[in-house]
Amino acid sequence: MLPLTFRIVLVEPLHSGNVGSVARVMKNFGFSELVLLNPCELDMRARVMAVHAYDIIENARIEFSLKDALVGSSVIIGTTGLAGTTENEHMRMPALAPRKIKEKLTGKSGVVSLLFGRESDGLRNDELELCSILVNIPTSPDYPSMNLSHAVAVILYELNDITGGENHLADHFDIELLYEHIEEVLADIEYKEHKSNKTQLMLQRILGRAELTGREVQTLRGVLRRIQWKLNRNKEQ
Amino acid sequence: MLPLTFRIVLVEPLHSGNVGSVARVMKNFGFSELVLLNPCELDMRARVMAVHAYDIIENARIEFSLKDALVGSSVIIGTTGLAGTTENEHMRMPALAPRKIKEKLTGKSGVVSLLFGRESDGLRNDELELCSILVNIPTSPDYPSMNLSHAVAVILYELNDITGGENHLADHFDIELLYEHIEEVLADIEYKEHKSNKTQLMLQRILGRAELTGREVQTLRGVLRRIQWKLNRNKEQ
Repeated sequence: MLPLTFRIVLVEPLHSGNVGSVARVMKNFGFSELVLLNPCELDMRARVMAVHAYDIIENARIEFSLKDALVGSSVIIGTTGLAGTTENEHMRMPALAPRKIKEKLTGKSGVVSLLFGRESDGLRNDELELCSILVNIPTSPDYPSMNLSHAVAVILYELNDITGGENHLADHFDIELLYEHIEEVLADIEYKEHKSNKTQLMLQRILGRAELTGREVQTLRGVLRRIQWKLNRNKEQ
Repeated sequence: MLPLTFRIVLVEPLHSGNVGSVARVMKNFGFSELVLLNPCELDMRARVMAVHAYDIIENARIEFSLKDALVGSSVIIGTTGLAGTTENEHMRMPALAPRKIKEKLTGKSGVVSLLFGRESDGLRNDELELCSILVNIPTSPDYPSMNLSHAVAVILYELNDITGGENHLADHFDIELLYEHIEEVLADIEYKEHKSNKTQLMLQRILGRAELTGREVQTLRGVLRRIQWKLNRNKEQ
């Protein structure tokens, strides 16, 4: 049986001490794979805050593009301070509570990447678009903005006793190809251009929430190919 | 209906920055009552880490005895890094998971004090003895020791959406009187001295887990008084 593993990806962390704090809480909850995307300089504060978890920082992978950071992932989960308010905000909608994420991933296998944004302003929209699931920690409206390592602590606390299973999740690369294929078909059927982006994003969100297996992705692509074949045939007649 | 409120008590915090981090995560999860027992000097780092929650530190009560810190509490919950292994360690046994604490307090009213120990070595045994319930965050055996503010984050995350209720918990002062009364009765019945301390502690743990109401405490004390009355009468005869 393939395992369910988690990768913690810090996107452009600004404070070295926070990276150390994240390493410590990762080790507290039994996680070890850390990827740092364009990190700040890692000075003594990282070492001081990591205490006995500095090995996690020493073994961290440093990347300069999000695509490289995510390679091999099946599911990409983005953390957001905003839960998404209106039905129209496909980007921010819907963010799930940490416990729901745990429920969704129970019984699955594959690599799950957890993205945490900058201390200053979180993940950017283009980064959130890459995510298949969004997670939001329920906080007080008086002060919703959490310290980076506190957010990591809460989410890893929820996930630390998750049990994987036999449902192997599709590789994110194959899912990206499916999304491109959907985009192609929307163009083929001359879907109204001003709606196209929003619909594309909504479809991605729906499929993202469904935790597709590799086989399901291939079947969906087969359906899309068949639609394109029929469209072409009808045009030729 | 009386409310269920929480008081966060930091016992001899050593690092000013941690006090600030705790204030921030308290405000994130909608908690406001902070008591600092013999704290370190609160310098700029407290302000830097609290960010928009410095009002919690400004309004914090500073105390120099644990008794004063706990005044008015119904339930005192101590956090411990050790879950307690043997049945004989009444002191450390049993520590509940944060979710269990939430279940136990749902539907109750009163003041719940959450005690967090020193960054270096947690709560001392004499402090743990005062607690009616112990809580332990499940962590990896490889590195169980959590950063203070991470521990606060996880526990407040669990408790942040708890719903109180009509079962008003007894004041801890009345429970202390009940415990002293039990001690008296154990002496009255000439309970073997070498067992007495352990039995006393076990009875306190059992009653502590039962979340007694004020009325229940008075009834129990009535039973104890009746035992003492009968013991005296038999002696006189």
